[in-house]
Amino acid sequence: MRFDVLTLFPEMFTGFFSSSIMKRAIAKGLITASAINFRDYTTDKHRTVDDTPYGGGGGMVLKPEPLFQAVEDLKRDQTESPRVLMMSPQGEPFTQHKAEELSTASQLIMLCGHYEGFDERVREHLVDEEISLGDYVLTGGELPAMVMIDSISRLLPGVLGNESSADEDSFSTGLLEYPQYTRPADFRGLKIPDVLLSGHHRQIEEWRRHESLRRTFHRRPDLLETADLTKADRAFLAKLLEEEPS
Amino acid sequence: MRFDVLTLFPEMFTGFFSSSIMKRAIAKGLITASAINFRDYTTDKHRTVDDTPYGGGGGMVLKPEPLFQAVEDLKRDQTESPRVLMMSPQGEPFTQHKAEELSTASQLIMLCGHYEGFDERVREHLVDEEISLGDYVLTGGELPAMVMIDSISRLLPGVLGNESSADEDSFSTGLLEYPQYTRPADFRGLKIPDVLLSGHHRQIEEWRRHESLRRTFHRRPDLLETADLTKADRAFLAKLLEEEPS
Repeated sequence: MRFDVLTLFPEMFTGFFSSSIMKRAIAKGLITASAINFRDYTTDKHRTVDDTPYGGGGGMVLKPEPLFQAVEDLKRDQTESPRVLMMSPQGEPFTQHKAEELSTASQLIMLCGHYEGFDERVREHLVDEEISLGDYVLTGGELPAMVMIDSISRLLPGVLGNESSADEDSFSTGLLEYPQYTRPADFRGLKIPDVLLSGHHRQIEEWRRHESLRRTFHRRPDLLETADLTKADRAFLAKLLEEEPS
Repeated sequence: MRFDVLTLFPEMFTGFFSSSIMKRAIAKGLITASAINFRDYTTDKHRTVDDTPYGGGGGMVLKPEPLFQAVEDLKRDQTESPRVLMMSPQGEPFTQHKAEELSTASQLIMLCGHYEGFDERVREHLVDEEISLGDYVLTGGELPAMVMIDSISRLLPGVLGNESSADEDSFSTGLLEYPQYTRPADFRGLKIPDVLLSGHHRQIEEWRRHESLRRTFHRRPDLLETADLTKADRAFLAKLLEEEPS
């Protein structure tokens, strides 16, 4: 899979592309990732990427030409048509489901604004989809692009060391994770639950499922509406509702 | 304001801390930001930060000692008590409101896991709050920490060049932004709306407000429930509901 990020701050991506799973996935040839400065697609002497808004008001607006030129250049010689995404607080909220859907694309071109808005013609005529990371204001689209690249890349076969890891994560079961403990069993008097030392695998499994349900019930009851629950799960939740109303 | 990030991948932060508003805010002395490898707080020869989970199962779990040691070291000699945040998909969802609340802290210590979970005792006894960026799975807490630092920093006085910029952003008005256009007025036959060339400031204001309402109505009707709407806004929305049911 190929990621091309159009940004005025390509240096922000250096640490991300050269660490952890990104570094390995790139080294293994599973993904190609580049951060391209779209200022390189300007044609005037001052390399202008923005200008004042028509109709007045503060702030600057990203001009259409350099972005159209950059995307057209990236699309040239591609056999499959890449999807062009705009990082925008006005877009569709990003979710795990969206990450899964985007992970089937062969190439994503991601447009990152910084401080300023995009000329509306970019939004209407160059971009396939606008995506938002959440309802908070950021300085630019660069961090959202990294979050999306991370989230999508780890779904690609071979990117995670252990193929099963992605399935066991939060959200893939629809529930929050159960508590985990490691050595020491007694840390400054804080002890781990006895059941985990019992060696009874069935009891451990049950304890973990219950704690997963309990945590989801207290913290994110909205997730229970879509989670895949057994009859035993529902009985346990009914008991929780009586004993520990949230 | 001071940000201390505890991570096994401090190099991921280099590009972020040295670009754009972070670079300027640090240079101006408005914020202090450091990425600290908590592996430096291990005391064994192999510098072990993780171990297998009690009770079995795949994956590794971050040990409590190095994280407790690191946080205690960072808290030493502080006059005000820092807030300790854990980046976790199980946490409270991050929002603009949360960013505003956290921007009043003097120091934030942010714990980033990577691949693996935290020992539950870290969650229960070391951390003040767990925060999640959204309902998607990421490889580590590093990108969420950067997103939060960016979002919080830009709310601090003096960090943005223009003090008014933060107020004009999406979400601060409760509505999505209106379309913006800049030169050229005709780009490959794509023309800007006539009203923006009219010079009639009142008409331009009205057009912008209407487009802002229209976009919010079609894309994020949930935001209209809490937005600050005038009588004229409500009349326009009522008309939209008839003419362009979403």
